[in-house]
Amino acid sequence: MIDVVALDGDDTLWHSENQFVMTQQRFTELLAGHVDKASLDARLLERERENLELFGYGVKGFTLSMIETAIEVTEGRVDTADIKAIIDNAKEMLQHPVDLLDGVEDTVRRLVEDHRVMVITKGDLFHQESKLARSGLSELIWEIEIVAEKDEATYQRILTRYDIDPATFVMVGNSVKSDILPVLALGGRAVHIEYETTWEMEHAEADKTADGYWELDTIRDLPELLAKL
Amino acid sequence: MIDVVALDGDDTLWHSENQFVMTQQRFTELLAGHVDKASLDARLLERERENLELFGYGVKGFTLSMIETAIEVTEGRVDTADIKAIIDNAKEMLQHPVDLLDGVEDTVRRLVEDHRVMVITKGDLFHQESKLARSGLSELIWEIEIVAEKDEATYQRILTRYDIDPATFVMVGNSVKSDILPVLALGGRAVHIEYETTWEMEHAEADKTADGYWELDTIRDLPELLAKL
Repeated sequence: MIDVVALDGDDTLWHSENQFVMTQQRFTELLAGHVDKASLDARLLERERENLELFGYGVKGFTLSMIETAIEVTEGRVDTADIKAIIDNAKEMLQHPVDLLDGVEDTVRRLVEDHRVMVITKGDLFHQESKLARSGLSELIWEIEIVAEKDEATYQRILTRYDIDPATFVMVGNSVKSDILPVLALGGRAVHIEYETTWEMEHAEADKTADGYWELDTIRDLPELLAKL
Repeated sequence: MIDVVALDGDDTLWHSENQFVMTQQRFTELLAGHVDKASLDARLLERERENLELFGYGVKGFTLSMIETAIEVTEGRVDTADIKAIIDNAKEMLQHPVDLLDGVEDTVRRLVEDHRVMVITKGDLFHQESKLARSGLSELIWEIEIVAEKDEATYQRILTRYDIDPATFVMVGNSVKSDILPVLALGGRAVHIEYETTWEMEHAEADKTADGYWELDTIRDLPELLAKL
């Protein structure tokens, strides 16, 4: 008997990673005269990994990592117009219309008939709130939790805050690392819906035989799955 | 009868604005060969104001605004080493030890004896959580709300979420705009404790005769004030 259905935001409710991929592609093109794509991608990933514990997730930290990488790989010779272009691309990402994934709105409307539906999303607070507001989903959602990291401690805090029994809680998302593993560890259930691309730092393997773990191809199948639990 | 005491974070529990001031001073020095301090401060403030609705509050947005301003005011001639220095200064801010204001720890320990004590702070989620964790106050605090904007809607959402009667709620902070006016408008009480400097974008005037409004010179006087309410 599922009481609370928690949905991830980026790449579960709306497209996000494809914009990061596109912006990184533009970044590669800006610096094509200095460095090849493979080396640049590797240097940026390394820089992002180092900066993560200071910057956290989101567009602004990604942008600062790109600027830093651009200066490093060109040994300072990057044109400041290119740095300006990197910032302009960030602003474009932050203003990008919210593209819901196929079936999201219909499904959320069905879910709220039988469950309390919350969104648990990580990343930049300001940007996530802005996306939720523009998603058209806000008035359907019971509670919204924007968190810095989706680990066991965070999920435990949320379960405690709303007095939710883990056995009646299901988390739905595209990241095995952030949406699945910590929830299963707490005795909750978790539904993985893979997105077209996964950020390298979110890669993790799920145990497909774990208790309480399901995989779906599309969020459209979620109400039917929940009805069986 | 006050049930819930909500405390602002930056410049109420710990020093923050002085680090922004210092970083902006370093920014001025970096660009001293291109532009005078007064013009640069004005251009930066204008840029921050324009970027606020995309970037929100916090160090990362401030840093992107500084980089943008540096490129603009120098018409692209800023040295990329100076841009790198701006990013390094941001990292220093994000790693800066948490300096509690005088009397904070003692006062919070006294407050929790008689009240539920929460922190309501705005800004970057990741950085605010990191500061709270390092403040040593976390285990004393009942609930922590890190929000994108401190306006009436936000306070109303918090009052509803925790089922708090505004008449039993007091907000304590250094910003008239963010900590005082919206809370008074909702029928709560508010205590203003001025900090040594106020960011230009937080300036607002309080009506010193308003019902439920108090001013204190130091947080040390808060328990005594609350005992009288």
